[in-house]
Amino acid sequence: MADPVAATPALPTFADVAAAARRIEGVAHRTPVLTSRTADAMTGASLFFKAENLQRGGAFKFRGAYNAIAALPDEVRAHGVIAFSSGNHAQAIALASRLLGVPAVIVMPEDAPQVKVEVTRGYGAEVVTYDRYSQDREVLGREIAQARGLTLIPPYDHPEVIAGQGTLALELIEETGPLDMLVACLGGGGQLAGCALAAAERSPGVAIYGVEPEAGDDGRRSFHAGRVVTIPVPRTIADGAQTTYLGQITFPIIRGRVADIVTVSDAELVETMRFFASRMKLVVEPTGCLAAAAVLHGKLDVAGKRVGIVISGGNVDIASFARLVAPAT
Amino acid sequence: MADPVAATPALPTFADVAAAARRIEGVAHRTPVLTSRTADAMTGASLFFKAENLQRGGAFKFRGAYNAIAALPDEVRAHGVIAFSSGNHAQAIALASRLLGVPAVIVMPEDAPQVKVEVTRGYGAEVVTYDRYSQDREVLGREIAQARGLTLIPPYDHPEVIAGQGTLALELIEETGPLDMLVACLGGGGQLAGCALAAAERSPGVAIYGVEPEAGDDGRRSFHAGRVVTIPVPRTIADGAQTTYLGQITFPIIRGRVADIVTVSDAELVETMRFFASRMKLVVEPTGCLAAAAVLHGKLDVAGKRVGIVISGGNVDIASFARLVAPAT
Repeated sequence: MADPVAATPALPTFADVAAAARRIEGVAHRTPVLTSRTADAMTGASLFFKAENLQRGGAFKFRGAYNAIAALPDEVRAHGVIAFSSGNHAQAIALASRLLGVPAVIVMPEDAPQVKVEVTRGYGAEVVTYDRYSQDREVLGREIAQARGLTLIPPYDHPEVIAGQGTLALELIEETGPLDMLVACLGGGGQLAGCALAAAERSPGVAIYGVEPEAGDDGRRSFHAGRVVTIPVPRTIADGAQTTYLGQITFPIIRGRVADIVTVSDAELVETMRFFASRMKLVVEPTGCLAAAAVLHGKLDVAGKRVGIVISGGNVDIASFARLVAPAT
Repeated sequence: MADPVAATPALPTFADVAAAARRIEGVAHRTPVLTSRTADAMTGASLFFKAENLQRGGAFKFRGAYNAIAALPDEVRAHGVIAFSSGNHAQAIALASRLLGVPAVIVMPEDAPQVKVEVTRGYGAEVVTYDRYSQDREVLGREIAQARGLTLIPPYDHPEVIAGQGTLALELIEETGPLDMLVACLGGGGQLAGCALAAAERSPGVAIYGVEPEAGDDGRRSFHAGRVVTIPVPRTIADGAQTTYLGQITFPIIRGRVADIVTVSDAELVETMRFFASRMKLVVEPTGCLAAAAVLHGKLDVAGKRVGIVISGGNVDIASFARLVAPAT
């Protein structure tokens, strides 16, 4: 059997995104596309926010998780699935597994937000924890998968996960019509790659951007170097984007279809959380603010343009949320 | 000229709600209807939340305000409008006036949330403040209106305001189909009366409920007494429902079409704010939680039913919000 790391993986296509849209229909929420005259006035653009914080499980990750599990052959799926995740993918796999009647094991960092651990267990999944600064979650996940006969559903580097995430851009563009720009949040690249597949087909000519935390700019470095660059685990409040390298599947899609990757600071993420709470009445987690933070803080030239922005999730401990959005005293 | 207080006012009808829907189309947001499996599991019901915290101006009040000003004859409107309001009506009148190119004066309590005062001024309105515990805002508002030739747009007891608020129920039922119950927030009764007009026509047989703060139960007392009962200004965190009596127009509509009026405590409102923030990722102001608090805290028998719930607004100071939703330490 070929080493899966060395093999060239098959890249998903727009047809896979369309198939994912059919699988998740009536199961995933068709989340609202929100507008804000205040944000438009701040930027001189027409902004369309895809509110995936209102998705089932509190984040876009449910799309890819459900699609990946639903696409498994029945006999494989019946044995159960395993996932390693900094949080939202875990909840998504746990929820999707419950809906599909499949056992699930979730490998989570021991410092993941408590709300995410609790909700994951609440969905009926078994949680195994690890130290994200000393252990490799992929190695641990693969070991447990092999020992128990489970199918590993990686958080981003998987064709059906990527295709599932792409359905959010499909819905967005169905509602807004053609866009000039689409700005996505970037961790491992599942959202950005999936959205790029969908948007390039449904809004030809759209310029697609990914946004990372400043401290975790492996995506930007990789994009400009033309090869996957690995970084140490970044320290950032954007816990969903603490990835250290883009995937073997996400990177070639991103490299081929994305216009650029930019970064924002943690302070800009906090400002954006406050903006969402005070002006748009939304609870958005730090990672979920990445794309909006880049647009609202002038990292991209959006003036006069129709811009889609992904709000990727809202899973933040209520105590952390209150602390972060409270005005400085 | 007849004394307007003694005259029997004309009651709005469903036709007025339908006319309001045409006036606000493309100006007001058609807010999303959100669902939550968690809330459904807690109550055994199918709950449909109409998210008016995502409305322009941050609350349902924009519907009635815009409709009332747009319905004025051109020559009357040109002189300008005046409103007295505990907050959201003020912002709504200020915003609608700006959109319609009309001067606006807003009479606000001096202890109104600072965010509401600032946003009202930001929309270009002139703000006049008063002491809500010693001065009668209606008297003050009428004096200024007469002195300056402005048209007074009251916050709830006005046919076009009521008709405008009813459009939210029209949209809700268009999206959900027939409902068994519709639960609205109750201050002066504009929302409840308007929703009752719309729902009785579009979902015959629906049972309509109003929800008030415990400390401000003038609506419940009036409903059960069969006449308008006036109470002292209630002390409650639901600042948008600190009304002291139902209107001459709202009361007969409510009396004729509403099944019952129930109350919730401030503690239940805070619990509900936390629920919205942590599970539905929404910022909702205390007053906006009234209807949901009654359903989530067992004040109404919703099991097995399809229930519409109005989330009326999200205009809460971010500091107050953070303080209220932060877990007790």
